[in-house]
Formats: sequence, C-alpha cells, structure tokens
Amino acid sequence: MQKEQVNELLNRLIASKKGPEALREACQELHPASLADWLEETEITQITHILGILENGYRADVFSHLDSEVQHEVAEILDFDTMVNLVMNMGHDDRVDLLRVLDEALSERVIRSLARAERDDILRLSDYQEGTAGAVMTSDYAWVGTGTSVREALKKIKQEAPDKETIYNLYVLDSDQKLVGLLSLKDLLLASLNDKIEDLMHADVISVLASDSQQKATELLSKYDLIAIPAVDEHGRLQGIITFDDAMDVAEEEATEDFHKLGSTGLGKMSLREAGIATMILKRSPWLLVLVFMNIFSGAGIAYFEDTIEAVVALVFFLPLLIDSGGNAGSQSATLMVRALATGDVRMRDWFGLLGKEVIIALGIGIMMALAVSVIGYYRVGPEVAVVVSSTMILIVLFGSLVGMSLPFGLQKFNFDPATASAPLVTSLADIGGVLIYFSIATWYLGIGLG
Amino acid sequence: MQKEQVNELLNRLIASKKGPEALREACQELHPASLADWLEETEITQITHILGILENGYRADVFSHLDSEVQHEVAEILDFDTMVNLVMNMGHDDRVDLLRVLDEALSERVIRSLARAERDDILRLSDYQEGTAGAVMTSDYAWVGTGTSVREALKKIKQEAPDKETIYNLYVLDSDQKLVGLLSLKDLLLASLNDKIEDLMHADVISVLASDSQQKATELLSKYDLIAIPAVDEHGRLQGIITFDDAMDVAEEEATEDFHKLGSTGLGKMSLREAGIATMILKRSPWLLVLVFMNIFSGAGIAYFEDTIEAVVALVFFLPLLIDSGGNAGSQSATLMVRALATGDVRMRDWFGLLGKEVIIALGIGIMMALAVSVIGYYRVGPEVAVVVSSTMILIVLFGSLVGMSLPFGLQKFNFDPATASAPLVTSLADIGGVLIYFSIATWYLGIGLG
Repeated sequence: MQKEQVNELLNRLIASKKGPEALREACQELHPASLADWLEETEITQITHILGILENGYRADVFSHLDSEVQHEVAEILDFDTMVNLVMNMGHDDRVDLLRVLDEALSERVIRSLARAERDDILRLSDYQEGTAGAVMTSDYAWVGTGTSVREALKKIKQEAPDKETIYNLYVLDSDQKLVGLLSLKDLLLASLNDKIEDLMHADVISVLASDSQQKATELLSKYDLIAIPAVDEHGRLQGIITFDDAMDVAEEEATEDFHKLGSTGLGKMSLREAGIATMILKRSPWLLVLVFMNIFSGAGIAYFEDTIEAVVALVFFLPLLIDSGGNAGSQSATLMVRALATGDVRMRDWFGLLGKEVIIALGIGIMMALAVSVIGYYRVGPEVAVVVSSTMILIVLFGSLVGMSLPFGLQKFNFDPATASAPLVTSLADIGGVLIYFSIATWYLGIGLG
Repeated sequence: MQKEQVNELLNRLIASKKGPEALREACQELHPASLADWLEETEITQITHILGILENGYRADVFSHLDSEVQHEVAEILDFDTMVNLVMNMGHDDRVDLLRVLDEALSERVIRSLARAERDDILRLSDYQEGTAGAVMTSDYAWVGTGTSVREALKKIKQEAPDKETIYNLYVLDSDQKLVGLLSLKDLLLASLNDKIEDLMHADVISVLASDSQQKATELLSKYDLIAIPAVDEHGRLQGIITFDDAMDVAEEEATEDFHKLGSTGLGKMSLREAGIATMILKRSPWLLVLVFMNIFSGAGIAYFEDTIEAVVALVFFLPLLIDSGGNAGSQSATLMVRALATGDVRMRDWFGLLGKEVIIALGIGIMMALAVSVIGYYRVGPEVAVVVSSTMILIVLFGSLVGMSLPFGLQKFNFDPATASAPLVTSLADIGGVLIYFSIATWYLGIGLG
C-alpha cells in the first residue's frame, strides 16, 4: 500500500471512532514498517495509544521500525508492563540497541524485570564494542544438536519459529556449542524425515569472529549470498548471527561514512537529519581549519617567488587554474582508490602495479590538459607563458594523481582508514606542490633572478 | 574454509591425480563462491575440466559466481552441450546476464536449443532496460493460486524447490497472474495443513513496477527487510522478483556510481580493475577539461584586478588559501547533500529549511576560519591585509557552502543526478566567486583605483 493510502485509511478509522478491535485489525494488515512510518508523523500520545492495542509480537515489530529518537520518547511515557513486554518480544539485537539509548535507570529496571536467561543474553550482546560483528549480531538463531534427525529438527523449528530472527538457516552445534555445520530450511524440506542432520549438513560454514569488523561480516555475507552469517568466538562457539537486513544497514552506514570522510565532513556515520547546528559547526570546522594551516605552505611558496610575480603579474592569472587541475586530477585518483579499496576491488599488494598504470594515465590526461591550457596561455599572454603554463600542467597533474592514488594506500598501510584521503586534503597537498612547480619553472624559464 | 586452505586442498588433490570422483566430492563440499574464487586464478583449461566433472546444479552455481570476463572465456571453449546444460541450470537472472555478454551467434544458438518456455522467459527478461528493476529480476520465483491449501502449497514448494531462486517467499496469484498476496515459508510451516492460502496470506504486498528503477526496488527491500521484492507490470501481474543478494549488489553499484560522480572520475559503475588505461584516460579527462575551461573565469577575474595585485603583491600569498577554503567548505556541503538525497535522509521539499540552517552553520565555520587566517595575515603582512583576508574568508565560506548545498537540489529538480554536483565542480565555482570577492574587498578596502 502506498504511504498516502495508509495515511487516509488510518486517519479515517481514527476519525470514525470505531472500537480498538477495528483499529487493531486494520493496523495489523499493514507491514510493520508502514505503520511505523505513519506513527512517526503523529502525536506521541497517539503512538502509545496505538501501540497499546496491538498484539505483542506485531507491536514489537512496529516498535523496532521506529526511529531511535521516537523509541526513546515513547519508552519514557509507556507504562512499565507494556515496556517490559515490548522488550521481551523484540529481536535480541534490536532490544540491545533500545536499552542502550534509554535512560540508565529505566534500562536497568527493565533488565531486572526479565528472566535470568534473557538478562544474561542482553548483557552478553551489549558487551561487544561498536563496529564489531558482535555489536550487530542477534542471538535468536535456530539451532540443533549434531545427533538430531530431520523430523526432530523440523519439529524444533516449528516450535521455536515465532521467537527466531530467521528460521531459514539452521545451525548445527556440538555438545560444546561449537558451530560444526549449517543446513538451510530448503535442505530440510527436501530431505526425508529420517535422515540425520550430520549427513546432510554443510560442514564448510562461512563465518566470522564476533570480534571481527562489521564490514568483514557484510562483505562475506554479500559475496556468498547468505541470508545470515554466523559469528563465533575464538573457540568456534556460536555467539550469534548477522542477518542480511542488518548487513544491508551496515553497508549503507559504511558507504555514508566513506562519503563523509572523502568530503572531510567530519560527520562519520551520522545522518544529516540527526545533526544539529552546533554539532555541524563543531564537526565540520576542524578539518577545514587543518586545511587552512596546511595552505600556509602554499602561501609561503608564493612569498618565496614574490620577485617572479612582480616581474610577470600575468602568471597569477593561471594560478587557480593550475593548482585546481592538480587537485582535481588528484581527487579523481583518490576517489577511485578509496572506493576500490572499500569494495575489495583492489588490495594493498596491487599498489605498485597501479602506480605504473597511473603514471601513464596521468601523463595522457596531463598532455591533453596542457594542450588546452597552452592555447589559453598563448592568446592571453604570449608564447613564453604558454610554454611555462603547459609544462607546469603536465607535472602538476602527474604530481596530484600520484599523491591522490598513493595516499589511500599509505593510510591503509599504517592502519588508518583510506577514506581519510579526502578530496580537500589531496587538493591542499596538490596546491603546495603546484605552487612550487609552477613558479620554479616560471623563474627558471623566464630567466628571472630571485632576490 | 579460508582461501589459503582451499588453495592447498585443491592443489594437493590435483597433484595427487586421483580420479574425478574424489575431485568432484572435494569441490562440492565447498561453497560455490569459494570454488569460483579458486578457479579464477587457474588456467582456463583447468576451469573447463573442473566444471566438466561437477554435478549440473552445483556447476551452474559455481559458474554464476565467476567474473563475467571469465564466464565469457569459458563459454567460448566449453563444449556446446555442457554450455546448454549450464544455461538451463543457472538462475533465470544470471543466465540472461551471461547471454548478454556472449557472442551473438553463440548466444542465439544456445537460446535455440532451449525449450520454448525457457526461450520465451529469456527473451522477456532481456527486454528490460538497464537500470530498471526488470533488468535484475528473476522469474524463478515460487507461487501458488488463490484456491490452494497449505498442504498443496507445501507439496508444490518441495517439488519445485531445486529450480527456484528462493522458496522462502511464496507469491499468491489469481487466475490473471495478478499478485494478490504473499506468504512466507515460515507462515506456511506454522499453519495447519488444511488452512486455505487465501485466509493466511498478507494482502498488502510491498512491490515495485518492473519498469521502476533498481534503486527504488533496493530501497524498499531494505526498508521493509524483505528477502525478495516482487516486480509487477502495470496491470499488477507478477513479472519477477529481486532477491536480497542481487539488491545488495545493486546498492553497492549505486554507491560506487555516486562516489565516482562526486569525484568526477567519469567511470560510473565501472570498477577500477575493469578499466583499461585508454578507457581511464578517455573517461577521466573530459571533466577535467571542462573544469580547465571553467577556471578561465577565475583567471579573467584576476586579470581584471591586475592593478590591485601589482599594488599589493602580498595579496597573492592568500589566494590559494582563500579559494581552497571556499571550495573545501562547499565540497563538505555538497557531499552531505548528495549522500542525504541518495539515502532518502533528505527530500526535495527540505531545501528551504536546510538553506537557513546552512547559512548559520557556514557563518559559524567562516568566523572560526576568519579568526585563524587573520592571525596569519596580521603577522605575515599587516593589519590592513588581515582585515581584507578575514572578511573575505567569511564571505567565501558562506558562498561556497551555499553553492555546495544548493547545487545537488538544483540538479535533482531538473532531473539530473544530484551526485553530479562533484567536489571538483563545486571547487571551481567557489574559486570564481572567491577571486571576485577577494579582490573586490581588497580593492575597495585598500583604496586602490582600478586602471
């Protein structure tokens, strides 16, 4: 159903003041995410009222789809029993995220009201550091022991299905909780009921360590087309699974983070909508200030060549053009490398091979740009300046490209994020080099003595 | 299994010259993607040999995981019958992709050897334009008619499972092939065998038109956490489904494309590894050349203020710093907006509100940067230049930020891709504005008459 239709339907129902049954029935026909969308645009009291009339499982699904800010607001005014019920019915990963944003007192009170097993599970999951696979995994996976038959496994799945994040992957654990195999529900359905799980299972399970990065988990899940990827501890014991939908969210966050780094925005994974004015100023300015101070070097370079400039002021006409060209060529290379490293298209060991390739490409591009700029130089000032400007162009493009392509590798080599090789940083570096190259060539070729 | 272990295992097996059965067994224990990884690094004759000994279904899976270049090479030398068998066993979406890259003659010969139904299916799927949901969807979905019982549906799923891309979503079609409902396999397993599909199904199915963009399909799939999203025609008839793994690939390609646009690389969705030297030069240079010609305007601006520069050469020291700062602040804003528009975090109608916010943010950032640069200006040259440089800084940062934030909206408004508001483009625009602002203020404040 389209968003407009959902709006109309629900607003009409509420206006008609029918009983809660009619409203509940209409709501529960919708996808939980559609209802969450609609709720986010209504009053907070309306949200708690609607949540109150829904069935437990569906209510938890809807709540999980609300923005974390709205979740927070709702949690503050929801009655305590409904709150506890909600937490019990939420996905094990989602409820950890919720408890993390709640006020500490409320969060502790909720946790204390839960059964021992649930409490331990929450504490265990919240123990993983942000950015690790453990921090996005959920512990409500479906599993069986090694000795089970297909008939028993199917029975277990049916019983537990309502509480599991996914039942389409069934993990096989030995008596030490070690992950020894994997079966899809499809495998199970196609097998005969008396088959043994051990004979059917795939023993070569693709998994990550719970302490591995979320990025690694997402890459493997995507590469092997998995519905979920299991995360184990150092002894191979199953700790949780990361489902494809959470992996998609992680991938989007990672891409956003790389974007923001490449643009030096300082915002990390934060979305534009979440960031307030003060945050934006505080996060965006440090990089810009660092770049201001870096630019002092290009200023100092120019100061050193003051005599050259006084002798031929026309050289200044070409200054923005030349240093921009170096920066632009460098940003291109940096963008290509950052993205290629992020998607695994290119690896650290490829640097040397790519360097040679980049030199040829940069020379090709530089020569074309030199031809363009020599025409401008010739008609604006004269043949001598045209020679200076066009030979500078080739060297500047080469310099910028090599800085742009090497910086991401260098950063990765020293365990920094390659995406920190931002366009503005590359531009500033290319500027410093550009100023020195330009005025050195000019001073030498035009035969100007330095004071 | 780790890549090194796979290498060792297979190399040892091949060296030991055991029969094809041992090799087949070892291979089929691996995930198809792992075997494909290994094959890609061996000789082409080795690839065809190994593919030849695998079972039909598994062989098709492995082949689907090979790079499209390698697929092409293999297809050229594989014997024709194996080739036809391969195509028959591949996913309906993957085989269309394969046939698209094959030589036309071979592709036609393969298609002619298929059964009528398969042939029609291939022709129908290959009919959709690149970039549409139709071009990535597959037609091997599981479906039942409205009158079916749970028992019948489960039986049908079991029979057809080996040929279906996913059996975890079951689509309910009426007698006109219209999509009227959806059931998950989980719903089916939890229902009692005599229940009617119509009573169980969710009637509010999230779907796209096959002619909609892939991006829309991916966004909805991700938002609603779907394993697959169905694509229908304008009459609501089911045409195919897009599974989460294909949607993840699409999302990654879209992000790569946005990255490349933002860096003006001209490479689109192309990966760095796929692009040859000549392609790189041809794709990367046009944008750089356009920017060279745009920069003529900043050169012209400088030429207009030649007298000012001759009077106070020290002004040139601050030129790169000031115009870079405008460009950097502008790239930040552009990056934030491009990404926010791509993820749906911000919509067209938000522009005006964001404009006011951006003015305040830019002034805050500009004032901080002005303070930094005034110190440098004061000690390097003197109080007068410090005033000029710092007031210029505020205006330049404001100008750059507004250009950077507005350009993506403007592009989207006129149906261009907002990501075309690349960092280099914003930098060049900020430069032109920066040169004019800087020397205008300098000329006026320092009281220099223009010639």
